[in-house]
Amino acid sequence: MGKKVVITGVPGVGKTTVINRAIEELSAEGIEYEPLNFGTCMFEVASGQGMVRDRDEMRKLDQAQQRDLQRSAAQVIARSEGNVIIDTHCTVKTPKGYLAGLPEWVLRELMPDTVILVETDEDQILKRRLSDETRVRDLEGYNDILEHQQFNRAMGAAYAMLTGCTVKIVKNPDFLLEKGVEDMKDILR
Amino acid sequence: MGKKVVITGVPGVGKTTVINRAIEELSAEGIEYEPLNFGTCMFEVASGQGMVRDRDEMRKLDQAQQRDLQRSAAQVIARSEGNVIIDTHCTVKTPKGYLAGLPEWVLRELMPDTVILVETDEDQILKRRLSDETRVRDLEGYNDILEHQQFNRAMGAAYAMLTGCTVKIVKNPDFLLEKGVEDMKDILR
Amino acid sequence: MGKKVVITGVPGVGKTTVINRAIEELSAEGIEYEPLNFGTCMFEVASGQGMVRDRDEMRKLDQAQQRDLQRSAAQVIARSEGNVIIDTHCTVKTPKGYLAGLPEWVLRELMPDTVILVETDEDQILKRRLSDETRVRDLEGYNDILEHQQFNRAMGAAYAMLTGCTVKIVKNPDFLLEKGVEDMKDILR
Repeated sequence: MGKKVVITGVPGVGKTTVINRAIEELSAEGIEYEPLNFGTCMFEVASGQGMVRDRDEMRKLDQAQQRDLQRSAAQVIARSEGNVIIDTHCTVKTPKGYLAGLPEWVLRELMPDTVILVETDEDQILKRRLSDETRVRDLEGYNDILEHQQFNRAMGAAYAMLTGCTVKIVKNPDFLLEKGVEDMKDILR
Repeated sequence: MGKKVVITGVPGVGKTTVINRAIEELSAEGIEYEPLNFGTCMFEVASGQGMVRDRDEMRKLDQAQQRDLQRSAAQVIARSEGNVIIDTHCTVKTPKGYLAGLPEWVLRELMPDTVILVETDEDQILKRRLSDETRVRDLEGYNDILEHQQFNRAMGAAYAMLTGCTVKIVKNPDFLLEKGVEDMKDILR
Repeated sequence: MGKKVVITGVPGVGKTTVINRAIEELSAEGIEYEPLNFGTCMFEVASGQGMVRDRDEMRKLDQAQQRDLQRSAAQVIARSEGNVIIDTHCTVKTPKGYLAGLPEWVLRELMPDTVILVETDEDQILKRRLSDETRVRDLEGYNDILEHQQFNRAMGAAYAMLTGCTVKIVKNPDFLLEKGVEDMKDILR
């Protein structure tokens, strides 16, 4: 079986950039990782079962259906022969509070090898969000982002307790993308 | 089934004030929540079974009995038809260390929708405790309260991982009670 | 059955000094604790089963074998008649990230009464590591140690949720060893 690595980070942390570069450079070394998005995997299961026709309908499913889909998506991913890197959230910030991206019923199926938390300075995240005009994001301040990044770490600890996975914090600071990519490659190798 | 919301906060944070106001104002909107105290629910189960005659005897029960009572109380609450808001501690500070207010055997029965952490500035908590002459509390300093509030967050993450509940941090700062009450109402609606 | 206390702390925190003094002084009071090292217990199980001849071979076991050994060692310790104090790590810092010292399959067997986190100021840990010439340690800075100590607390919360154990933070500051020893004795009594 391949390695199962989960990659997480708050919106604006530059997770996608780091992971795409790392996957590309590792491929040149002969190490292959298939990038997966957990939400997309859930949608594929749901549409395959005829539960939904488009992604909008996903939000209308009730809690029990959503949990079944999460479990099924995790089972599909767990059967992957090759290495996979699963893009998701460590915690999702909702109006009702923080939600575990990988609750127990997902973790028991997925049993990841490593959960990566891509982090950077709260102030840099703020600036990146403000300069990204392509997305409408919730307005958060420095302390909101700090709280979210800290909560992600606490959640990562709970994941590690339940599954035995490692939890790796990778920094992605401004002007040091290469450093973040190298750190990521060290974990994936 | 109704919603099951757990409300927690360190002593002196003003949890009761916020929750009573929020329940009262929501009732005027036609949204009803029954306030429950987890310790009282445990006592009712214990006295109903003839295990104890008064609350003092609760402390003399051994660990296995206490855990059984916690589980039974959680089962009773989980069967509530209407919305309930359960007053308890995220972690209890004891001489032997922090204890989970909602350990696994409680969580699996209760399966709360949301765990609310009412927090405020450590210095304000200190002052509120000092001015509350009706209660004798353990003497704690700024850093003790900070440590306790941080530990509560970490514990909240573990609860969210196991149950899929949301964990919402509600601030209750001095002079801004109305803001705390409004935030609480947004969660309970 | 005896008490099962787990003692943890980052390298250089002076865990061994505190615990040895506390055990010695408690023995004079007639309270006995047997000190155990979790890694040594695992090795004894492995060599008893003929799986390994020396400790170097332990590292070559695959993940499934390591987990089986962890579980078996926890079962052996859980059967102790007297009080035991188990020396291990709350989290282990590896190149792939933080690893839970007591993952779920260990916790469910061990069911500790208390997990102690021995902590001290990051700067003091740095200085102790630099002055300890007998060991080669990974070079870590102030923020690395801070991150590790914070992650240990989050992990401790997850342990408390799953087992109902208490998590006690004991400070071991410079020049105040006696205070740390006294705090430790209060927990172990």
